[in-house]
Order: sequence, then C-alpha cells, then structure tokens
Amino acid sequence: MSKEHEQAELRGGVDLGGTKIEAIVVDASNEVLGSARHPTPTSGGPQDVAAEMAATLREAATAAGTSTDALRGVGVGSPGSVDAGAGTVSSARNLPGWDGSYPLAAELGKLLGTRVALGNDVQVAIGAEFALGAAKRYDSLIGIFWGTGVGGGLILGREPWHGRGGAGEIGHMVIHVGGRRCPCGNEGCVEAYAGRAAMEAHARHEMEQGRKSHLLKLMEEKQRERFTSAVWAAAVERGDELAIELIDGAVAALGAGAASAVNLLDVEAVLIGGGLGVRFGEEYVERIRKAMAKHLFPGHTMPDVQLVSLGDLGGALGATLLVAE
Amino acid sequence: MSKEHEQAELRGGVDLGGTKIEAIVVDASNEVLGSARHPTPTSGGPQDVAAEMAATLREAATAAGTSTDALRGVGVGSPGSVDAGAGTVSSARNLPGWDGSYPLAAELGKLLGTRVALGNDVQVAIGAEFALGAAKRYDSLIGIFWGTGVGGGLILGREPWHGRGGAGEIGHMVIHVGGRRCPCGNEGCVEAYAGRAAMEAHARHEMEQGRKSHLLKLMEEKQRERFTSAVWAAAVERGDELAIELIDGAVAALGAGAASAVNLLDVEAVLIGGGLGVRFGEEYVERIRKAMAKHLFPGHTMPDVQLVSLGDLGGALGATLLVAE
Repeated sequence: MSKEHEQAELRGGVDLGGTKIEAIVVDASNEVLGSARHPTPTSGGPQDVAAEMAATLREAATAAGTSTDALRGVGVGSPGSVDAGAGTVSSARNLPGWDGSYPLAAELGKLLGTRVALGNDVQVAIGAEFALGAAKRYDSLIGIFWGTGVGGGLILGREPWHGRGGAGEIGHMVIHVGGRRCPCGNEGCVEAYAGRAAMEAHARHEMEQGRKSHLLKLMEEKQRERFTSAVWAAAVERGDELAIELIDGAVAALGAGAASAVNLLDVEAVLIGGGLGVRFGEEYVERIRKAMAKHLFPGHTMPDVQLVSLGDLGGALGATLLVAE
Repeated sequence: MSKEHEQAELRGGVDLGGTKIEAIVVDASNEVLGSARHPTPTSGGPQDVAAEMAATLREAATAAGTSTDALRGVGVGSPGSVDAGAGTVSSARNLPGWDGSYPLAAELGKLLGTRVALGNDVQVAIGAEFALGAAKRYDSLIGIFWGTGVGGGLILGREPWHGRGGAGEIGHMVIHVGGRRCPCGNEGCVEAYAGRAAMEAHARHEMEQGRKSHLLKLMEEKQRERFTSAVWAAAVERGDELAIELIDGAVAALGAGAASAVNLLDVEAVLIGGGLGVRFGEEYVERIRKAMAKHLFPGHTMPDVQLVSLGDLGGALGATLLVAE
C-alpha cells in the first residue's frame, strides 16, 4: 500500500466528554496511530468547545504523522441531543453554554478541513464495544456509562435501538419517586444519585452544612476544578465517609436502574463504562451486579455484567466508526 | 363457503387472568361467534385451573354453535413464565398452587380435543392491539396491563421484543429503592404500588391497623372474595379515603414506571390495559399521562398514551392469533 493510499484511509475520532476531550487517529484496521487528550472547557460556549476539539484532534493527527485535512473524515461522539442528519448538537447540559442547538459538524468541519459525522457519545462507545470489543458475542445488551452524567445505549437483536432518536436514557429512569433532584430537572433519576456532577453538587451541599470530607482537599492536591473520577477514587481509598456514602448510593442506584432495564428488556448483557466505571473497575462492576440482583425479577436470569473492554478509548474508537459507515 | 369449511376455520382463545377466565370462539375474520367468562379458581392447583379453562371454552363453543374438538386450535394467553415451545407455564404466582411448571398445552389439549398454543397473557393482548386494534399505526410501543399484577409487553420496530424470553416486566421496574414489598419478593417495584393483589394486601393490613374503609363492605355487597376492579372503582366513587390514597399511589407508580420505560426506549406510544386500566378508563389514562410527564426526560417528546381499544376481549382475541400463526 502506498503512503498516499494509507493516508486516505486514516480516520479521526473525537470523544467529547463533560470533563475531557479524547481524540485519536486510526488506520483502516482501527489501529490507533496517534492520540491526545485535553480538558473540556468549563466556560465559554459551543464555539470554544469546538475550537478545543479541533486543537485536540490536530495534536492526535500530528502524533500520527498526518494533518486533519488529510483524514478521510472525523467522527464525533457527543453528549446532549444529537441530530446526526442535521449535524447539530443541542441541550448538552454538561457542556458550557450549550443549552441551545449548535451546528457542530459544519463548524468543526471548517476548523479541521474534513467531513465530520456526529453520533451520541454513549451509543458510539457502545457501538465500538459491540463492533470491536468483548460485547461482540451478545445479541442484546444495555450499556451504562457512569461518568459526569449517566448515559446509556441499547443493542437489541444485534442492532442499535434508537427509538424516536433519544433511546438509552437509563440515567433518567426513576428509582425514587419524590427523591433527589436530578441535573435534568426531574426527581429521583438514577443520575441524581450516580452522576458525578450530581454527586459533586450533593457533596458540596453537605460540606456547606458542616459535613467533613477530604474531597475538596484531594481536588486541590490533584489540581482539578471538579471532583473528577480520580478525586472520588482517592477519597474512597482514604476512607472518606461522605465519599463512601455517595459512591455506595451511586452503586445502589446503578444496580436498581440496570435491574429495571433488564426486567423490561431481558437482555443478555450489561456493559459498564464511563469515567467512573472505568476508574472504579472490576470490583465495582461486581458491586453493581450484586445491587442488581436485589431487584432482578425472580423469573429472569442474571445477564452477564461486565466492564467495557476498550477502556477510555472506546468512545473515540466508536466515533471513528461513524466515518467508516 | 360450506358449513364444514367454516367450522374448520374456527379458532378458540382463552385469556387466563388472576381473577377471571375469558374464552371466545372466532371465525377466520376474527369475528367473535361465542364467548364465556368464569372466575379463576382461588384454590387447588394447575389441573383445577385447566379444568375451569376447558369448561369456559366449552361454553363459548356451544354459544358459537360448535364444539371444542371441531376447532382448528386454541390459543391461551397465560400469566407466569410461558415456554411456548415446551407448552409449559411456570411460576404463575397469581394462580393457585402454580409455583412449579405445568404442561398446560398438553393437558388442556386433552380436555378440549384440539391443539393448544401458549403465549404470555400480556404479550398476546398487546399483539391483538397491534394486529387488530388502534395500535396498528405505531412502529414501537409499550403495553402496560394494570390488573391483579402489572404486566407489560413491547413492540419495537413492528416486532414483539421478548429478549431472552421474559421481556416486558414493566411491573417490576424499581421506582422506590427500599420501598414497599412486591408480591415478586423484591422491594419497590411498580406492582408493589399498582398491582390489585398488592393493593388489596396493603389495604387489608391498613384496616387491621384500625384504618377505616368501605372496601370490605363493598366486596361483600358485590359478592366477591377479593377487591376486584369493580370494588376499587366503587370505593373511589364513594370517596373512600384509603381506596383513593392507594389508587393515587398506583397512578403515580404507573406514571413513573411508564416514564422510565419511555426514557429508556423512546417509543411512540404507551397502551394502558388490564382489568383496572379498562375499568378506570380514559380519565385515568389521562392521569397516568400526567404522572408520566413529571418523569419524562426533558429531551424526549411525550409519546401517545392511550387505552387499549379491544377492551376486555383483547387478551382472548390475541390468544386466537396464536393459532393463526
């Protein structure tokens, strides 16, 4: 294969998260040739986020020995409400100033000099697990992405299920009618107990009420502006009572939500991913499985519950598959 | 068409409920030629229930001017865990002495002198709504059957979704972690708040604790042994405080469960059926819709929420379609 031909086969992938932007460049065999990671801007608006995405992908392209305008295309896994046809993202509540609709595909395409395809971040990551990861062997599965929010996606009968376009909001299944306020505005959603942003808000509120915790100190030690997955993990490891209480609540909420979804859909597998999911790893997947068992319908068999196999890069890898399609 | 040919086209359908057995005989155009209804036995075991089913269908056949052994076949919509291939029903907890597995297709076939096909009661009823009722126009829907238990079924992409065989347990989605005990043994399921059996148990417990209610008196007036849908409806109409409180709780639970399911699946429609659903009718469908709205994910559009269109006969009609297949 000539060098030129190879270059024409390269694809970019960007995983846009609430905390970080992960960008990669892959070849035709989905091998990662270059990658980069930047923090997601916490202020400004969609155009600032797009500029940071472009900068991250440029860095990955340089590492891969190419430039973004030489790529066959770039896929983006985005939070919020993604209209792949229109190339827009709206209501991305975990991103700064992104309540309205923004033409991300067109704007990012201009910055990169290549075609940009959009997909929902979690669906894209689950697509990667299903196409390239350990989930290949299942006909049906639910993916749960435990991070800033709690996202989800469905594979039913070996096909993604999108419903009217918005399916997969496992984080907004109700597990406590009249319960804790969720960032979405409703009450008692899984995400109100398990989303990192919701947990941080709750922890800060408790600390303002005089509750002791190492969370703030650990955040400063790690030079972060938020309680990242690493901050939560360190706090739990240190035996921080408030952190342990909140993480225990998150596990219970994820277990109840996952069991509810399995009781409804009777799928073969539940995949756990996301920043917190990957950070807390196998031990916590087992804890979530135990929390599910309490709520699994007695007539059902426990599905396989496992950690995503592509780790942190799953989202970006899945995004590159949007170009291949 | 000769009389003999017509006879060969007749099919039977039995809807086996926790409270009543509904049997019909239909012709090739799905027209009901005869029907009968018996109460479901409250004691004994599966063989007693099968005998009562046979008696009910015999009565329907007589009304249709035929006999059961002249039918092309009989379909049965059954609660519990139905293995259609094996012809068995197990764990039908709302039926007497039916915790184990029972070869219903074979035993009922012997009693009736014709072939018997089994299906899950709720899936069968939803199949009828989808094939013959108002739900024809939807590509995706969730059916919720509000009766002795709370059953459910799914049509996704114009096909029933069974998962590994047990999908549709919307009554066992968790809406209160640590909440009320459900007849299934778990805590906080929709059915623990909305199932007629669970509501009756809760009401009796409250009355034993000294709470006043007309429920028992109404049950006796109506010469029933249980708080049937008619008893609940009469109590609510009479302004009975305990009945109103429990029915309000049921509406809230159904709304939260339905919204959870829609947040996950983003379907076009929610169908409400079952004994209580049909009895309480349009007014309560609207109340369930309002309860759903509180928990619907803000990015989603409210699906159509409507009452089943085939009424009480939907289950038995759907059962006859098992023969047609």
